[in-house]
Amino acid sequence: MTRTSQTLAGKETVGDIAAFGGKPLFATVRPIGQLSLPDERQFFALARGIFDRRRITNNGPVVQELERRLAAMHRVPYCIAYANATIALIALLKIVAGPVQGEVILPAFTYPGLPHIVRWAGHVPRFCDIERESHALSPIRVAEAIGPSTRAILGVHQVNSPCAIDELTALARERAVPLVFDAVHGVGCVHRGQPIGGFGMAEVFSLHATKLINTSDERLADSLRKMRNFGIVGESEIGGLGLNGKLNEIHAAAALACLNGVKDVIGRNAERHQAYCAALAGLDGLRVLPYPAPAENWNYEFVLLEVSPPWPLSRDATVALLRGENALVRPYYSPPLHLEATDPAQPPPSLPVTEDLSRRFIQMAVGELVSTEDIQEIAVFMRFLQSHARPIEARLAAAERGTR
Amino acid sequence: MTRTSQTLAGKETVGDIAAFGGKPLFATVRPIGQLSLPDERQFFALARGIFDRRRITNNGPVVQELERRLAAMHRVPYCIAYANATIALIALLKIVAGPVQGEVILPAFTYPGLPHIVRWAGHVPRFCDIERESHALSPIRVAEAIGPSTRAILGVHQVNSPCAIDELTALARERAVPLVFDAVHGVGCVHRGQPIGGFGMAEVFSLHATKLINTSDERLADSLRKMRNFGIVGESEIGGLGLNGKLNEIHAAAALACLNGVKDVIGRNAERHQAYCAALAGLDGLRVLPYPAPAENWNYEFVLLEVSPPWPLSRDATVALLRGENALVRPYYSPPLHLEATDPAQPPPSLPVTEDLSRRFIQMAVGELVSTEDIQEIAVFMRFLQSHARPIEARLAAAERGTR
Repeated sequence: MTRTSQTLAGKETVGDIAAFGGKPLFATVRPIGQLSLPDERQFFALARGIFDRRRITNNGPVVQELERRLAAMHRVPYCIAYANATIALIALLKIVAGPVQGEVILPAFTYPGLPHIVRWAGHVPRFCDIERESHALSPIRVAEAIGPSTRAILGVHQVNSPCAIDELTALARERAVPLVFDAVHGVGCVHRGQPIGGFGMAEVFSLHATKLINTSDERLADSLRKMRNFGIVGESEIGGLGLNGKLNEIHAAAALACLNGVKDVIGRNAERHQAYCAALAGLDGLRVLPYPAPAENWNYEFVLLEVSPPWPLSRDATVALLRGENALVRPYYSPPLHLEATDPAQPPPSLPVTEDLSRRFIQMAVGELVSTEDIQEIAVFMRFLQSHARPIEARLAAAERGTR
Repeated sequence: MTRTSQTLAGKETVGDIAAFGGKPLFATVRPIGQLSLPDERQFFALARGIFDRRRITNNGPVVQELERRLAAMHRVPYCIAYANATIALIALLKIVAGPVQGEVILPAFTYPGLPHIVRWAGHVPRFCDIERESHALSPIRVAEAIGPSTRAILGVHQVNSPCAIDELTALARERAVPLVFDAVHGVGCVHRGQPIGGFGMAEVFSLHATKLINTSDERLADSLRKMRNFGIVGESEIGGLGLNGKLNEIHAAAALACLNGVKDVIGRNAERHQAYCAALAGLDGLRVLPYPAPAENWNYEFVLLEVSPPWPLSRDATVALLRGENALVRPYYSPPLHLEATDPAQPPPSLPVTEDLSRRFIQMAVGELVSTEDIQEIAVFMRFLQSHARPIEARLAAAERGTR
């Protein structure tokens, strides 16, 4: 409590808020990324081996070991390592969605790069609404959206829930549409006893320095390997469209040096999540999004704070005030991607659940640079905001008028 | 001479040729790649710094230093590091050639990935013939090919000559077509006193582990930086089409640790080139492609052997026999890319110079794994082929009949 009082001493009046000229709560930034590093000793040992072998790329032994270990971890026959998940997803969609331009169904409540990936693969994004609880594609809305121009469904597992995997799988089979998953948030997670990474035609996921595609489909695995290596088949003949998507040995070393530590990282994430739940309990209108049991379904990569009345400040004002204090929080998936569409002739579709959720959440500061004490200080600051909401609102309104 | 006799002792009869069941000349392969490694001490020092700073990607200090040093080395204001040259060229073409599908003019006497890059950027490859001496795009043929659907010219500097830079630059300006260069072969080379890397709207080149785009155009540099980072402008807003083309810190460390050694690598390449010229002198019908003076125009990355009558064996038979001996030589840019085109409805254009040159050259074994002694052994083997051409041809013809 002494510590808390000391911190509070820094924010005695509204003028002590950093956004209004006060000293920031944190001298250095508290980011939203994981920022966990590979195990240093293991990385340097692997790196020495790469120099000793003089083998730096082109499917070398470190890449092969990484692919073997990850395939085993995800209980899938094939894992193909790509240089990054953008390239991996472009290659995957180009292969499964085919050459004739059509639509790829995807959510709008996700990261902004995803519709670009659809466009690079030669198709048009078709945004579909999500389920309120899972934050992931609604099978009902997907069923309505499937039509003759549908080329693929690109589901995105969310940090708080996988997609409705069973329903989407049945739907994809029934309507004969390829189904793939962006499983970037699914590292270490489990669905009905089976690791995320083994569903649909393929799943693309991310492991810190590296991105990987899992698939159970031998022909698809073969196509993905060829596309990764310029489309080369045999000695040097080009068998189809390709690019350079190769992961090199030093990247694979970094990824391998992370693997053993994944459980510890997830453990620390869960602790931070618990610390946020405890510290912010009792603040009316703030709710840390819970991760339903069982615990092995989640990696606690993000902490999402839901903001609603009677919390006295808007979500965006709360974000701005926290950022001023060097807690680099963000509005979560906001604005939603369908409202950012580039074609002015085409009005955006109406996605009511997506639009509602995109106004609710703050992605809180997490990762290796955020301590339990930091979280407690953030909570004290939030209580300060709550108890000084009126004068804060007045200052914000005055500042807003000033910038116009 | 003793050494040569010992080697020759291994090839006393045609049956001693490895392709016919004999013991290979080389116990381990002699490849065509450079296979030079970054300076080990410098790489590990930089890698330690990355761990100490906990900064592994997103335009960190190592990437920034690499870009600064390369911009200075090439005397250009901007250098933008991408994860690989495929991604860099796709991004560059997407920006300069614009969104409306059209043609990109490029040579067919180059590496097979290049037309794929044009397709990923949303355009159609238009193959154009080359000059016999430079092996690079013929400005006359390019001028004929430019039409209303031309979106860009993609020149490729060759290992034995840069493009006709002045003529292409004048033509591009006159016809208002963006001109960019693939300068992957141009590392360390000079044109009229100016380093390759500063011509056209931008040049993409490769430095071992990393690929870079140079440009003098501030707006283009800005677009390239945004596209590399998912198209993000400002905090998180997406300002246009993007992807993940970021080079990370560990790659930049590898590249920086190569920079000081580039001159030494080129020096060793020149020695190997000289060794091939000396060792193969006097073999009728074989000519090592010369690199015209001044020496600083070339990096001697490849050694190209031109095969023509009265050499008694075909180019492809010579390649097969050398490969049997573990000298992993290759037909150079053969078949040319326009004859590999994927659209059966569209007959390939006639590119007589390209087609002729594609039948002539062998890309010889070079790089750090090939010693001067290796080159002398290859020359002795070539003399053996020359003096035993008749029975070799008979064996090859018999083998050919056997496989039918």
